[in-house]
Amino acid sequence: MSTTNNSTGITAPAGFRAAGITAGLKASGGRDMALVVNDGPSKAAAAVFTRNRVAAAPVHWSRQVISDGRADAVILNSGGANACTGPQGFQNTHATAEKTAEVLGLSASDVVVCSTGLIGEQLPMEKILPGVAAAAAALAADGGATAAEAIMTTDTVSKQAVFTGSGYTIGGMAKGAGMLAPGLATMLVVLTTDAQLPAADLDAALRAATAVTFDRTDSDGCMSTNDTVVLMASGASGTAPALEDFTAGLTEVCHSLAQQLITDAEGASHDIAVTTVNAATVADAETASRAVTRSNLFKTAIFGNDPNWGRVLSAVGTTDAAFEPDKLNVSINGVQVCRNGGIGDSRDLVDLTGRQVTVEIDLNAGVESATIWTNDLTTDYVHENSAYSS
Amino acid sequence: MSTTNNSTGITAPAGFRAAGITAGLKASGGRDMALVVNDGPSKAAAAVFTRNRVAAAPVHWSRQVISDGRADAVILNSGGANACTGPQGFQNTHATAEKTAEVLGLSASDVVVCSTGLIGEQLPMEKILPGVAAAAAALAADGGATAAEAIMTTDTVSKQAVFTGSGYTIGGMAKGAGMLAPGLATMLVVLTTDAQLPAADLDAALRAATAVTFDRTDSDGCMSTNDTVVLMASGASGTAPALEDFTAGLTEVCHSLAQQLITDAEGASHDIAVTTVNAATVADAETASRAVTRSNLFKTAIFGNDPNWGRVLSAVGTTDAAFEPDKLNVSINGVQVCRNGGIGDSRDLVDLTGRQVTVEIDLNAGVESATIWTNDLTTDYVHENSAYSS
Repeated sequence: MSTTNNSTGITAPAGFRAAGITAGLKASGGRDMALVVNDGPSKAAAAVFTRNRVAAAPVHWSRQVISDGRADAVILNSGGANACTGPQGFQNTHATAEKTAEVLGLSASDVVVCSTGLIGEQLPMEKILPGVAAAAAALAADGGATAAEAIMTTDTVSKQAVFTGSGYTIGGMAKGAGMLAPGLATMLVVLTTDAQLPAADLDAALRAATAVTFDRTDSDGCMSTNDTVVLMASGASGTAPALEDFTAGLTEVCHSLAQQLITDAEGASHDIAVTTVNAATVADAETASRAVTRSNLFKTAIFGNDPNWGRVLSAVGTTDAAFEPDKLNVSINGVQVCRNGGIGDSRDLVDLTGRQVTVEIDLNAGVESATIWTNDLTTDYVHENSAYSS
Repeated sequence: MSTTNNSTGITAPAGFRAAGITAGLKASGGRDMALVVNDGPSKAAAAVFTRNRVAAAPVHWSRQVISDGRADAVILNSGGANACTGPQGFQNTHATAEKTAEVLGLSASDVVVCSTGLIGEQLPMEKILPGVAAAAAALAADGGATAAEAIMTTDTVSKQAVFTGSGYTIGGMAKGAGMLAPGLATMLVVLTTDAQLPAADLDAALRAATAVTFDRTDSDGCMSTNDTVVLMASGASGTAPALEDFTAGLTEVCHSLAQQLITDAEGASHDIAVTTVNAATVADAETASRAVTRSNLFKTAIFGNDPNWGRVLSAVGTTDAAFEPDKLNVSINGVQVCRNGGIGDSRDLVDLTGRQVTVEIDLNAGVESATIWTNDLTTDYVHENSAYSS
């Protein structure tokens, strides 16, 4: 599998065209609208969305689109989230879908819409609608890279991944730094495949893949109003893989994209994998790991190259996971700094100067495990997010 | 009520002596051990502790001490949390209580112990035990101020408050910046009164007072291993106030101390009160407010003087409070920037240059309300907490 920026990404699978163009939404003048079209023969699709109850207009729209298991195209814009924009905002999403349908000869009810950017501002439709036409005119069978570029906001690099299966291919692109329900950046992901699978199978595979990748990626604990992960299958390969195999491949693509998000998270200087082992249940392992990845004190300590394991224990102690406090072990970058809930090997042995940090929490309560990926909390994060909308 | 640094604080009520001395625990050479003694005639007491399951040795000890509703003295140290220190740590707490009992002629089982500082290091008992003796020798009827100074860690000023009731007095001191279960700093609070009340009434009053003050103060969302709030009543005034009146006075003292904690929180440049109104239940109002006070994105925006109300809505949207997204209103410093879930008055009208920030969230779902107090997330917070143990 390619885990770096692939020159084709979402257009690696047969049956897809894509484009990324400049509609004038970004002050920088960079590409800001993307379009992905499934040319079939199948139009099967599935999607997962933010669980935030304050969901953006495009999320409300796209939930309806995907409800029949079909999507023919996805139109995406950066430079504005179209969230908290009331009835006007929903009309703007509708108009964007209608325009996309018109220029492509589709039904608007088969067009997924995704937006990302500042909450609480109306989109400049005088730029969006011409942008749709320009994107349609620019569609190309190798347009994945430009589409991946057009959905970037605070991303510093575009994110793509490709998985080559037995007789079929899965491609993907992503933007935004955070969990499936992340913060500022909103996470938008488009996944494509030329495998032949019905919508119900796509839905099952997508939920399984996101549960152990994007759902376990938590940059800053904040849940966006716009997160969307959409998967479209063209069936153009003629290959109908076993669902288990397809799910494994899709998970690889999602894992690669999630890791790329973490590596490019806002202001981060360390990528941190917090793994809880020997938990009574997977849920316990997730809960314990997530508590640590949400501790500002732990995350600032890592920024300072400080193996402050007390902040790991104090975070785990806030959870209801099954464990005895005096049986907890914690290792940081392989050094067991906490043993039996107390002082272990010297914290001076821990080297945190590298980018990658691993924290292992041993609950001594079972056999299950789970990893949550996050970043450190840095002065650059604060700077970047204190100046976002002003 | 005095809400500033009072020259007597915990020694304002009759029947108490206190001291703060230098035992040599702090690198700075400042006062680092405090002792508070209840000379009676009553020794009734109550306490609340951190809910963190990874609780420090002094918390385990003090829970036992307070279980019979009696405490004769509190010995406190900064410069070390004695958390995650195993059996040796508990023995050290026990030895500290024994030494205190010995020099004061009490029973160790009536001595509350509080510690604050770095987790995962053993206390230097060769300094602690002489410190206990020195503190006992320095006890004075006006020693409250020195005691308040001795429990400071990253605090820049000591915190005291006094409430004068009808025939009785309540005094208090506090250290640490955070919620009842805060972060780095650990919150330690000692409250004293010369009112005559049985332990059960003290317990009821303390739980009621902390529920609406310290429990609603959330600086960084992190829960400490050491938090302790202890209340002792000497009965020396001979006055037995109505429980309701006493609770109101105690709540005032706790509110004052909580506000002093927020004002002195680590690295903060804004004090933020997030009030949710028109909620279906008080729990809903608390939940909605707390979600906002735990959003790093919201808190960095306030640091940047940016009235980014989308981050308020996206935080509220993660809760299960009763509301309809299109009926939410949000005001920041009096300007209704979000109306009916959409765009309200111009965000340019909001002035965030002052220290005090008020956010009001109207759920339009009932008549209940609750305020949670917090701070902004600043580069100074990150700096201070990235360098704490190194």
